[in-house]
Amino acid sequence: MARASRTPPGQGVDLEIHAPTVERILTGFIAGESRRVGLGRVVVGLSGGLDSAVAASLAARALGSRAVTAVLMPWRGSSPASVKHALLVAGRLGIHHERIDITPMVEPWVERYPEAGRVRHGNRMARERMSILFDRSAEHRALVLGTSNKTELLLGYGTIFGDMASAINPIGDLYKTQLRQLAAHLGIPSSIIRKPPSADLWEGQTDEAEVGAPYDVIDRILHLLFDEWLREDEVAAAGFDPALVARLRRRVSETQFKRRPPLIAKLSMRTVGADFRYPRDWGT
Amino acid sequence: MARASRTPPGQGVDLEIHAPTVERILTGFIAGESRRVGLGRVVVGLSGGLDSAVAASLAARALGSRAVTAVLMPWRGSSPASVKHALLVAGRLGIHHERIDITPMVEPWVERYPEAGRVRHGNRMARERMSILFDRSAEHRALVLGTSNKTELLLGYGTIFGDMASAINPIGDLYKTQLRQLAAHLGIPSSIIRKPPSADLWEGQTDEAEVGAPYDVIDRILHLLFDEWLREDEVAAAGFDPALVARLRRRVSETQFKRRPPLIAKLSMRTVGADFRYPRDWGT
Repeated sequence: MARASRTPPGQGVDLEIHAPTVERILTGFIAGESRRVGLGRVVVGLSGGLDSAVAASLAARALGSRAVTAVLMPWRGSSPASVKHALLVAGRLGIHHERIDITPMVEPWVERYPEAGRVRHGNRMARERMSILFDRSAEHRALVLGTSNKTELLLGYGTIFGDMASAINPIGDLYKTQLRQLAAHLGIPSSIIRKPPSADLWEGQTDEAEVGAPYDVIDRILHLLFDEWLREDEVAAAGFDPALVARLRRRVSETQFKRRPPLIAKLSMRTVGADFRYPRDWGT
Repeated sequence: MARASRTPPGQGVDLEIHAPTVERILTGFIAGESRRVGLGRVVVGLSGGLDSAVAASLAARALGSRAVTAVLMPWRGSSPASVKHALLVAGRLGIHHERIDITPMVEPWVERYPEAGRVRHGNRMARERMSILFDRSAEHRALVLGTSNKTELLLGYGTIFGDMASAINPIGDLYKTQLRQLAAHLGIPSSIIRKPPSADLWEGQTDEAEVGAPYDVIDRILHLLFDEWLREDEVAAAGFDPALVARLRRRVSETQFKRRPPLIAKLSMRTVGADFRYPRDWGT
């Protein structure tokens, strides 16, 4: 791991995973959930990045490569390297892939709202891809596999009802630094593991430049705040920049709405989203 | 109410609401939630139907008519009456409206998948509208107002990450028959209250024909099963068709996945969607 080569702050924080155990748990999750709903197939959007490569690889191991359909959804501004890496992953895993250029669906919106900035454009594309992916899942009678990791989910670094939407997400409880460990174990090509994580919305965009810190620092701060329940000053005392700690914590709280279902006004004794919860296997 | 004109089965079941009280609670909900997140505005998709008319009317009363933006999103197959009714509502409430024909965004998808049937087409359109509505909310710095009622939510009669998606939903805990009562109280035009509820996906489509029973029967069965916790045989003993009761109950359980966030595989002590819950006002 990159972080072994220097002495980072908060070095006592351990985000090491035992990759074979994690693989066993997550392939069991995919196989079990697919079986439970009576669908033995998944579709996954392959972006060319690390996260979707890991999710696809776990699914191929869980269900067999013929049960996984990869969907590539570039637009005209996507990096050519992204498509190349996605094809590399599909080829290595021996999974079928479909390629759908989203430009024709997004273009009428761009023409209507030429003033929309990068963020709105990114959200629009993420929701277009969600729509296509769920449609493909209906045709294939498959589950949509989520590819958001824990770092992104906590920071709200994703589009609600876009890339954050899925049926089952095998990697949502792993931080980005942990996903890199799992990716190495799964044999994901190092060209994919090593490239800077990016939403690929414009040339040169990287996650770490946007958040303002490297993932190995971000992940340890999030871990201390939300898994270990430390206060901000305690995290800072472990060797992290207090301003960064405060900024990340605020960001998690401000994006809490992205991690929960729509809020429904309560009038009755049992309200959907509030009291209408069941064990997953309720009545089915 | 229509159901007063005959003696329906399970007539002892009371779904009457005290409309002024419900109005007060729901306008308070909209005002309170808008204030809490620092946005005093909402956007709402006006379909021309009863549910979105009620939601828009509540929002106008809660925040003032200038704080509500109605978005009309017809496609080329929409009924002209739908647009007419939506304009009627916007005019009566004195709210600003925007009209966005979704045909150009949906057409490239139709050309790509000409074999897709009505259900996939309906889901595609619902997600297109969600995408537009959330984009409009970003530009207006507003919350997206949900318009799914309790009957639809329980039956899963809606598109996940489509019309079921919203920021706040004031009407999701009211059955369709209760919404009709509230609509009358709010002064929604009777032409809208009286028309058969429809998803308006094709000519002559009605909800009740699809589900196979009138709403006043459906709602009372759902109420007995899920608010009163009665067993199926107890509901049938109250005078309802046992086959219908069983069918509705099965439908609710089979669509449970639509009412919860994506399922994330659990690895840590605190997993998004499982343990990562807070009171709504946590830390903000």
